[in-house]
Amino acid sequence: MPVRTFEFKDHRLKLLDQRKLPCVETWVECGNARKVYWAIQNMVVRGAPAIGVAGGYGLYLGIAAWRGDRKCFLKELHRVAEYLKSSRPTGVNLRNVIDAIVARIEKKKETDVNSLKRFVLEEARKAHREDDQICRAIGRYGAKLFKNGEGVLTHCNAGGLATSGYGTALGVIYGCQEKGKTLDVYADETRPLLQGARLTAWELKKSGIKATVICDNMAASLMRSGKIDRIVVGADRIAANGDTANKIGTYNLAVLARVHKIPFYIAAPSTTFDFKITSGKQIPIEERHGEEITDGFGRKTVPLGVKVWNPAFDVTPHAYIAAFITEAGVLRPPFSRSFKKLKAGLEMS
Amino acid sequence: MPVRTFEFKDHRLKLLDQRKLPCVETWVECGNARKVYWAIQNMVVRGAPAIGVAGGYGLYLGIAAWRGDRKCFLKELHRVAEYLKSSRPTGVNLRNVIDAIVARIEKKKETDVNSLKRFVLEEARKAHREDDQICRAIGRYGAKLFKNGEGVLTHCNAGGLATSGYGTALGVIYGCQEKGKTLDVYADETRPLLQGARLTAWELKKSGIKATVICDNMAASLMRSGKIDRIVVGADRIAANGDTANKIGTYNLAVLARVHKIPFYIAAPSTTFDFKITSGKQIPIEERHGEEITDGFGRKTVPLGVKVWNPAFDVTPHAYIAAFITEAGVLRPPFSRSFKKLKAGLEMS
Repeated sequence: MPVRTFEFKDHRLKLLDQRKLPCVETWVECGNARKVYWAIQNMVVRGAPAIGVAGGYGLYLGIAAWRGDRKCFLKELHRVAEYLKSSRPTGVNLRNVIDAIVARIEKKKETDVNSLKRFVLEEARKAHREDDQICRAIGRYGAKLFKNGEGVLTHCNAGGLATSGYGTALGVIYGCQEKGKTLDVYADETRPLLQGARLTAWELKKSGIKATVICDNMAASLMRSGKIDRIVVGADRIAANGDTANKIGTYNLAVLARVHKIPFYIAAPSTTFDFKITSGKQIPIEERHGEEITDGFGRKTVPLGVKVWNPAFDVTPHAYIAAFITEAGVLRPPFSRSFKKLKAGLEMS
Repeated sequence: MPVRTFEFKDHRLKLLDQRKLPCVETWVECGNARKVYWAIQNMVVRGAPAIGVAGGYGLYLGIAAWRGDRKCFLKELHRVAEYLKSSRPTGVNLRNVIDAIVARIEKKKETDVNSLKRFVLEEARKAHREDDQICRAIGRYGAKLFKNGEGVLTHCNAGGLATSGYGTALGVIYGCQEKGKTLDVYADETRPLLQGARLTAWELKKSGIKATVICDNMAASLMRSGKIDRIVVGADRIAANGDTANKIGTYNLAVLARVHKIPFYIAAPSTTFDFKITSGKQIPIEERHGEEITDGFGRKTVPLGVKVWNPAFDVTPHAYIAAFITEAGVLRPPFSRSFKKLKAGLEMS
């Protein structure tokens, strides 16, 4: 059921090119860190957990050809890590995965640089495997919340394509499928890059799940029609108070959900939590090129010379969130209390 | 400042082809009622007031070549009227304009059919002229509500292109311009047909007004940022209680406006009011072809075989509306009282 999105073989990272979906399935090969940086920045691979996994392999590719002693190796490892972390500013998984690998390598007493390189690759592979296990756990916890026949709306793509294959928000839908629960799934198309229309619809279809695509501005009417029982989306960064950065349009949905009395869930692995920041105000919001809006479909859709505003993310205040679905369970308000368990787990690992 | 969108000359109705904007400015010529029906249905001309004006000319073109006596002429006039009214179901101006012309022709004692035809054309021209005067009155009343330097968000195109040249929601913005008030205008791109990006941005640019285009799902973030002081949109049909059908996404905005404490205005001529219906529940909502979503602008954006839902309009409950800006003044709640004056005016005319 999960889709295949990553492959690491013969010192090359192969990524399913998400810019070309749903029409063409092609792969991009990355043989060095610069290519991985490019692939992340240009959204060949996207979705905070998937970017984290790609970043891990990118770190290995960045130091694989390096020669020198342990001290210089660690210096180079830091340099490559900082470089890769700067590829996209909003999501936190990339930083969390890379920092964790670097910290573990630093703890090793090993002086043989080739062995250290192998450790980096092992850690990258481990992050990849763990992401899959984490998503499946999210799917199992989330599936308990949903009833057979319910209507569910999702935004952007928090699916197999945004992770190592199983997904977070869509992981919950796959979790329902595994339990024999059929949901009536609606996907926002998610302007400007249409990840909902292109990616979510594509992978749900591949997984044999029927879905209906709507334009983002139809969500309120859909909610008012009574067809939506729950909303579940992914996340790019979650602050210590529960404020959540996710694809632009998420905050829209959260407000509409509140007014229509529909529970609004965030499905995300613990690597998406950033306990270093106290609220969403501290999350940097990436603004992307206006051409994503003006020239997105192949035809120019905004007159030349007219300004556009293109924030890639928004922040949903924690008060709009019914629960976080994580690999450690379903965390409900007050989040200051329910996050404690997750935080303790992260500090131990 | 207003844009030129209509021309009736030599028994032909020339319409600026709005499907081709903003890249190409071409005109479609209609020499008979069938072509006018086609132009309305395929949105060569769109916007409820503009459809009303086009319908008036269409009625004339439908009977211009007709031969026979007065009785048969009136029968034919009714037939063409019903045919044209069926081209788009949601807006009410088309029906109101056509019914008014038919009623006035029926009252004439004239038996010469050629004279009756001339009366139809005069009435169509009168509806055209009146639309312009009405829009300018809306602009004048609306401009009093707005202060210099305020931020205003609009949706779809309720401008010169949606009327005979001056606009309703954009008429208010042009009214501000005439009074020397500069507004910071934002336009929702308005999926699926992008009337905001293609048409509103185009005509504001032509009129020398700076605007910023956003995707529909960015509206909540924009409101939260504090940049929007007022929202003004047009309408396709307004029920007796104030419930308002307008372009899909309007209800989204109205809910978001309420939560962000931003006044939400409807700018519309009295021909948009349908006092025959008591609430928005009675307004038929046109559902259009899914290809508008899946294949809108040159590239397929939804995988083949995936369902889409494409309602062209939504209904905003009257409780979300701060005021209606009409040619008879600004009507505030309770609408049951403020609509009375408008209703009396309509019944007199």
